[in-house]
Amino acid sequence: MDLNEYFMNRHTVRAFSDRAVDMELLRQLVEEASHAPNTGNMQLYSVILTTSDEGKRALAPLHFNQPCVEGCAVLLTFCIDMNRFARWCQVSDATPGFDNLQMLMAAAIDCSLFAQQFNTAAEMRGLGGCFLGTTAYNAPEIASVLDCPDRVVPLISLALGYPAEAVAGVPAQDRLPVEAIMMEERYRQFTDDEVRGLYAGKEARADNRHFVEENGKQTLAQVFADVRYPRESNEAFSATLASYLSRYLQ
Amino acid sequence: MDLNEYFMNRHTVRAFSDRAVDMELLRQLVEEASHAPNTGNMQLYSVILTTSDEGKRALAPLHFNQPCVEGCAVLLTFCIDMNRFARWCQVSDATPGFDNLQMLMAAAIDCSLFAQQFNTAAEMRGLGGCFLGTTAYNAPEIASVLDCPDRVVPLISLALGYPAEAVAGVPAQDRLPVEAIMMEERYRQFTDDEVRGLYAGKEARADNRHFVEENGKQTLAQVFADVRYPRESNEAFSATLASYLSRYLQ
Repeated sequence: MDLNEYFMNRHTVRAFSDRAVDMELLRQLVEEASHAPNTGNMQLYSVILTTSDEGKRALAPLHFNQPCVEGCAVLLTFCIDMNRFARWCQVSDATPGFDNLQMLMAAAIDCSLFAQQFNTAAEMRGLGGCFLGTTAYNAPEIASVLDCPDRVVPLISLALGYPAEAVAGVPAQDRLPVEAIMMEERYRQFTDDEVRGLYAGKEARADNRHFVEENGKQTLAQVFADVRYPRESNEAFSATLASYLSRYLQ
Repeated sequence: MDLNEYFMNRHTVRAFSDRAVDMELLRQLVEEASHAPNTGNMQLYSVILTTSDEGKRALAPLHFNQPCVEGCAVLLTFCIDMNRFARWCQVSDATPGFDNLQMLMAAAIDCSLFAQQFNTAAEMRGLGGCFLGTTAYNAPEIASVLDCPDRVVPLISLALGYPAEAVAGVPAQDRLPVEAIMMEERYRQFTDDEVRGLYAGKEARADNRHFVEENGKQTLAQVFADVRYPRESNEAFSATLASYLSRYLQ
């Protein structure tokens, strides 16, 4: 395997073939992913696999009916899980003080490292997938559908499967130049002109120009700030999430 | 490369050789990592590389003087970065509404996926490292040392380098069995006996038994709940973090 070729050209897959993903392979990928780094080796996460049509149908509206949810072979919901750890403490005469922001963030990081390691292990075996940002929008309802108890928080979902026949015309990966995200010794504030330069490549792409046009906007940044992630939606979803996570935010 | 061999046997490295890590290689690894999945392709993260002795010395106490901070070739501080995006909006007549919990969590997840992809790309090239959970404990001071402006939040640090000569007796990886963390269709609550069974392997390890003994505790869970992550420390660090993140938690 050419590692640079893999890392640079990996991409989101949203259309899948009918081929099922073997449960033994899924088990192996989860085990491999569990060897990702994590805080104090507490493994404050779990992953719930939805392979049944019924299960996917129940989750689809909570992911705003993105077609990949019902179209994938397996939908994985990666959860922060402090319940298992609390249960272990319960049978071990220990009392954890984990209902706070530090442990929430530590567990969220660890759950993300675990999910990303799963994704990499899966992609390197020819699978493809799509992370769903909708999970945090509807975390309480997703938790309810998946029977998650207190202290189990759905954080990241991954629609997984074998990619459909390669679609012609997948555009090259759209990423900022390394100079935008990598700094030496100190954070570097860019001048206005430098900022424009860093985003110029992105703004010049045909797909992004089309995006601006079809949304009737003047700039690509307006598409993100006004249409895709508008303040009102962000704040409404945040209120739901803050209420759901209240035990960690007090 | 035997992928299963890599994923199952990768491990934290805390002792490094004197060999420097070439800046061109670091740049390549950051670029590769930037192709990890992220929310809306906004790349709400940055990474700051500390290679100077002076820089490491300034950061060491904020990581409680863990020897790997001064002993590594490069210390990477992965940061949530909504500043660059806000600056782009500023020069593009757009107004982002990102000061809220949803965007904080989305950016924290994306920063974690980026950090984990960097770590995997680095380890696959023979580098080794250690993630530092101390970053969130002292995020405001680390931000100050690294000149991070508003909306740039240090989240994860990675001490990186070429591993020192293999140390004899590195114990096999200590992870829960897959059954503990992987569930099908619904979250599964374990019975008391099942919980004991899931943690029995961990509790039986010589290193963990030694841990219980040297801390004068009765159970391994007590070592985590009382000694390593006691409620009082978690809550004190949480108060600092909540104050630092207040714009996102309102």
